[in-house]
Amino acid sequence: MFRTALVEDPPPDPLSVITVDSGEKTMEPVRFTAIGKIRTPFTSREGTPIQPTGAEGVLGRVEVDEAFREGIRDLEGFSHVILLYHFHLSEGFDLAVKPFLDGTVRGLFATRAPRRPNAVGLSVVRLVSIEGSTLVVEGVDMLDGTPLLDIKPFVPEFDAPQVDVRTGWLEGKADKAREARADKRFFKD
Amino acid sequence: MFRTALVEDPPPDPLSVITVDSGEKTMEPVRFTAIGKIRTPFTSREGTPIQPTGAEGVLGRVEVDEAFREGIRDLEGFSHVILLYHFHLSEGFDLAVKPFLDGTVRGLFATRAPRRPNAVGLSVVRLVSIEGSTLVVEGVDMLDGTPLLDIKPFVPEFDAPQVDVRTGWLEGKADKAREARADKRFFKD
Repeated sequence: MFRTALVEDPPPDPLSVITVDSGEKTMEPVRFTAIGKIRTPFTSREGTPIQPTGAEGVLGRVEVDEAFREGIRDLEGFSHVILLYHFHLSEGFDLAVKPFLDGTVRGLFATRAPRRPNAVGLSVVRLVSIEGSTLVVEGVDMLDGTPLLDIKPFVPEFDAPQVDVRTGWLEGKADKAREARADKRFFKD
Repeated sequence: MFRTALVEDPPPDPLSVITVDSGEKTMEPVRFTAIGKIRTPFTSREGTPIQPTGAEGVLGRVEVDEAFREGIRDLEGFSHVILLYHFHLSEGFDLAVKPFLDGTVRGLFATRAPRRPNAVGLSVVRLVSIEGSTLVVEGVDMLDGTPLLDIKPFVPEFDAPQVDVRTGWLEGKADKAREARADKRFFKD
């Protein structure tokens, strides 16, 4: 169980905006708190798959905090879910990075590198079963203990454009994610 | 330009974890700060498309803060990008909601409702062009002024399972998102 009780900070103000002279609203930092924890076989960053395609057959458990259990109702009809989570071991970021699947330095937002200004990870995983407030999923590519931020149902009509998809520098390389494993490149120790 | 200078809080500590007696790391609230702002034609919540499929042909501008401009290099080769953003006008949440596309109360995480414990929105949009530090995109379904949290390249091999996709209560309903527009249901005014 995720121990929210140990967190001493007051709960986040969900509407953390301030009004500035132009009349525009601008945003103060928004605070997000984990709603659970993702359990995977991967306890060290090296050797962890870099995408769900590299984690075929790898089972994990999405432990939703009991307080949010009612919210996972009706998920059982979906074959896939989108997990949003915090890359909790990522520190800082560089705007130009050398990705796993390419030898060339690329703009950070054209990569899936975990070291990002807002270190939110996104993985589409297969929903195998639901046991109480835990989702058993296949295709986990995150570290054990990763804080869960959100679960959304995967809906091809919303999330998967079917025509004219081009993938830039990743063209012809994305399939290599099946074999690629994380090394030290993305982490500052 | 997004006015990060107006934010008085100190920068977030990216590794905001504390160690508890079990040796487990648990997470303090993580703070995210916008890296830009999304400009769309939608200035009120009512009438806004509920998904990119309902926003076909609707152009928007993703204004990336100048400080992060280097990070969007190499995006031009991608036809689609994933936008993560803050549902900044959403307040609170209910774990059971009546979605737009269905008359039945559903578990929150089986829906895409904006009022969520961590109010992060996700939209896959078509990248039309890049002008300086601004992405021109098609298929915007968010409110004008929405704070941008992250941009990721959309990669079908990572993000779009092609086989055996089932969509539970949304089966046969997702296409209705083309016509559906937001009403007051998801907002507490």
